[in-house]
Amino acid sequence: MPQKIDNQLKDLIGYTGKAAILLRDTRAKNGSKVTIRTKDGFELSGLLIPRYEGGAGDCIVLKLKSGYNVGIEASSISSLNVEEPPFSEKAPIEEGESVLGTLAGKKTVLLLSTGGTIASKVDYRTGAVKPAYTAADLYASIPELGKIAQIEAEVLFSSLSENLSQRDWEELSERIIASKTKPDSSDLAGIVVMLGTDTLAYVSAALSFSLIGFDHPVVCVGSQRSSDRPSADSALNLQGATRFAASSNMQGVFVAMHKSENDYVIAIHSGVRVRKNHTSRRDAFESIDVPLFAEVRNDKIFLNADFPTISKKSEKRSSTDFSLKTRFDPHVSLIKFYPGFDTGLLDFLVNDRRVKGVIIEGTGLGHVSSKTVEKISELVQKGIFFGITSQCIRGHVDLNVYETGIDLINAGATPLGNMLSETAFVKLSWVLGNFPPNRTISFMTENLIGEMTDRIRLRTN
Amino acid sequence: MPQKIDNQLKDLIGYTGKAAILLRDTRAKNGSKVTIRTKDGFELSGLLIPRYEGGAGDCIVLKLKSGYNVGIEASSISSLNVEEPPFSEKAPIEEGESVLGTLAGKKTVLLLSTGGTIASKVDYRTGAVKPAYTAADLYASIPELGKIAQIEAEVLFSSLSENLSQRDWEELSERIIASKTKPDSSDLAGIVVMLGTDTLAYVSAALSFSLIGFDHPVVCVGSQRSSDRPSADSALNLQGATRFAASSNMQGVFVAMHKSENDYVIAIHSGVRVRKNHTSRRDAFESIDVPLFAEVRNDKIFLNADFPTISKKSEKRSSTDFSLKTRFDPHVSLIKFYPGFDTGLLDFLVNDRRVKGVIIEGTGLGHVSSKTVEKISELVQKGIFFGITSQCIRGHVDLNVYETGIDLINAGATPLGNMLSETAFVKLSWVLGNFPPNRTISFMTENLIGEMTDRIRLRTN
Repeated sequence: MPQKIDNQLKDLIGYTGKAAILLRDTRAKNGSKVTIRTKDGFELSGLLIPRYEGGAGDCIVLKLKSGYNVGIEASSISSLNVEEPPFSEKAPIEEGESVLGTLAGKKTVLLLSTGGTIASKVDYRTGAVKPAYTAADLYASIPELGKIAQIEAEVLFSSLSENLSQRDWEELSERIIASKTKPDSSDLAGIVVMLGTDTLAYVSAALSFSLIGFDHPVVCVGSQRSSDRPSADSALNLQGATRFAASSNMQGVFVAMHKSENDYVIAIHSGVRVRKNHTSRRDAFESIDVPLFAEVRNDKIFLNADFPTISKKSEKRSSTDFSLKTRFDPHVSLIKFYPGFDTGLLDFLVNDRRVKGVIIEGTGLGHVSSKTVEKISELVQKGIFFGITSQCIRGHVDLNVYETGIDLINAGATPLGNMLSETAFVKLSWVLGNFPPNRTISFMTENLIGEMTDRIRLRTN
Repeated sequence: MPQKIDNQLKDLIGYTGKAAILLRDTRAKNGSKVTIRTKDGFELSGLLIPRYEGGAGDCIVLKLKSGYNVGIEASSISSLNVEEPPFSEKAPIEEGESVLGTLAGKKTVLLLSTGGTIASKVDYRTGAVKPAYTAADLYASIPELGKIAQIEAEVLFSSLSENLSQRDWEELSERIIASKTKPDSSDLAGIVVMLGTDTLAYVSAALSFSLIGFDHPVVCVGSQRSSDRPSADSALNLQGATRFAASSNMQGVFVAMHKSENDYVIAIHSGVRVRKNHTSRRDAFESIDVPLFAEVRNDKIFLNADFPTISKKSEKRSSTDFSLKTRFDPHVSLIKFYPGFDTGLLDFLVNDRRVKGVIIEGTGLGHVSSKTVEKISELVQKGIFFGITSQCIRGHVDLNVYETGIDLINAGATPLGNMLSETAFVKLSWVLGNFPPNRTISFMTENLIGEMTDRIRLRTN
């Protein structure tokens, strides 16, 4: 019997039992705007959203106007009325029609899905969240996207972001670059990349380097609460990301996430100065030691005039030397220094694992123990690059203040100013992947795209 | 000639040339309150502070009332008058006299110096800062300390904090415990430990565990700017720390540092919930996801009523099981996960370095790659402890939300709630150092002294 219903209503995958029957009888489809009245007198209006296997199939899920989802047991429903068909079945927007008053003409935004919470659902068997939604599913449940731009959705891969690594960054970079060479790419306004938030800042940094010279904005977006949970932030994040991709005309790689716990403002961060600073809050992402690049508020984009500009020199250089280099060398490590740090770790990485470069997250201004300084000195002689960042997160590395710092400089370590550890790790992978080893120090200490906002004091001895 | 002056004025070590002659002629000593008039008409009053070899010896350095130091070239001085002798030469405070209205009776504070900026000076040859001041020197330059308590100063070691490790934590713990058994310890009110800020939070966490059951407050204090620099914060930090040690009557280990960039309020942090979050600001230290424990403002201590209390159970337990255990096992590691993380690192630590426990700083809610989960599972079988924290810093690890997390739990990894990575690393070293291996998981997941402020959801399978 459920088998038969599934066949009849292929748009309603996951709904079973009374819920499936009710939806079939009322001809409701995913994306339909419906009004439900319950037997105890409540009335709820919202968009019907997909229900996946594993969930309680006889519970109907609506996305309310607030952005929150609500599940209603079919047996408690007294009536269900379809108010509007799904957005995709409506008449297409006329050319030149500006639905929200800000859209001039029909621009295309490429929506790439890689997995993560933004494309996840709760597995009701285990209670855990796992990647499930496709970009198209999400698009269907957030029809507002269609008002912002013509959406082309594509699932590139479906991974939790902790499994993404250098090879995936390369694939993602190449897919984005390829979008420019398609015959119908003339309408392409920008690209939105849906990512898991865990390593989103690593990926945004990777794309920031690999896409130097790319013409369109690339906006990385994630969500902290899965789309089928009441406090989901995916809809607003995606709308903000899509609007920025469609209408900002900016070049560069950005991150779009909630600015605060409220559902009002989407923060647009620089892709190389952003960090996930909270495990679960919707506003977990913060720009570090730079202001926000922009905000999306009430469907409008506000660029921040205070955002530091990048030196002309780098801009000029980037169009030649650094353009669209998509390789990332996996022979890099990010090591956090700790009291009693075992320097044998560095020997192991270099000798056994052929690591070519290491980012050391030092303490304070960038310090490590005297033993570690000695080991770095030894390994620098072998041609290994050691870049120094700080586990303080905020502020900048300065190796000219304390004896240890000066010893580190003399050992051949390279201070990396206020570059974030994560960004430094990614940049090192990119520099080693695309350029000859004798350029590593000069490229790592040059501010290419705003990854460092202060000057590095590099003393020679 | 300078030799002769040094012999005459042994209190004025470091001053040479015209400065030494001027000080000799006016009978000024270190700690004297002096007023200087310059040839171009400025007048400055302050305490004469020691000048060390390496500096420009003919520059007289005063500590102004604002806490800032100023150097005045001897050749630009038209007059120098000694207004008051050094504090140590004044008549002792009468028993019961309350200089600041808050000191009832004469309490002793033990001031232990271990090095760090708070005990550093600029080496004018290299321009770098290195450990130099002794606790007694500092006391001489901050005579206000004598108004707060009877100070006993001792230099325990003189290291930049990046070189302190487990053995030093043990020595420091033992020295503090020994202070209780001295014949004249009945007046002991508390202990101030001067530390370098780089690893101050690691040390405060170490003492927090090793001194469970210790009767008196132990206050760790550092400074972000060396004492002979204009923006020095050491005087106010030391005063705040000393006041809290002398008068709070609290048990536990705390950190005293500037609350803001202003020279007004000293924040008193829990020793296990504090982090250095900026490389250079005076207010670099922040309590993470807990409020401040207390503030010292205008010579008064304000306890924070909102500070979370520790469960009665732990308090009861701590007086028996956990009291004054001062061993720290160095066979521990703190590893930050990064994209493409090489799990061979874990094999190396366990097999080659006999590491017994590892804190993994995962992404987001505490995630690592699938390969890392597999490796952890393999090594847990060998009896290795894996504790999971988050590189987000704020928020708490939860391994019950995503598939990866549940896999990690099934692999035998232990989620550590909202314990800071640095605190978790130190606690693990302490647990392994003092207790049998079969207690590691239960002690690591129990909140002993406020190191975790939320419950850990530990599922069994």
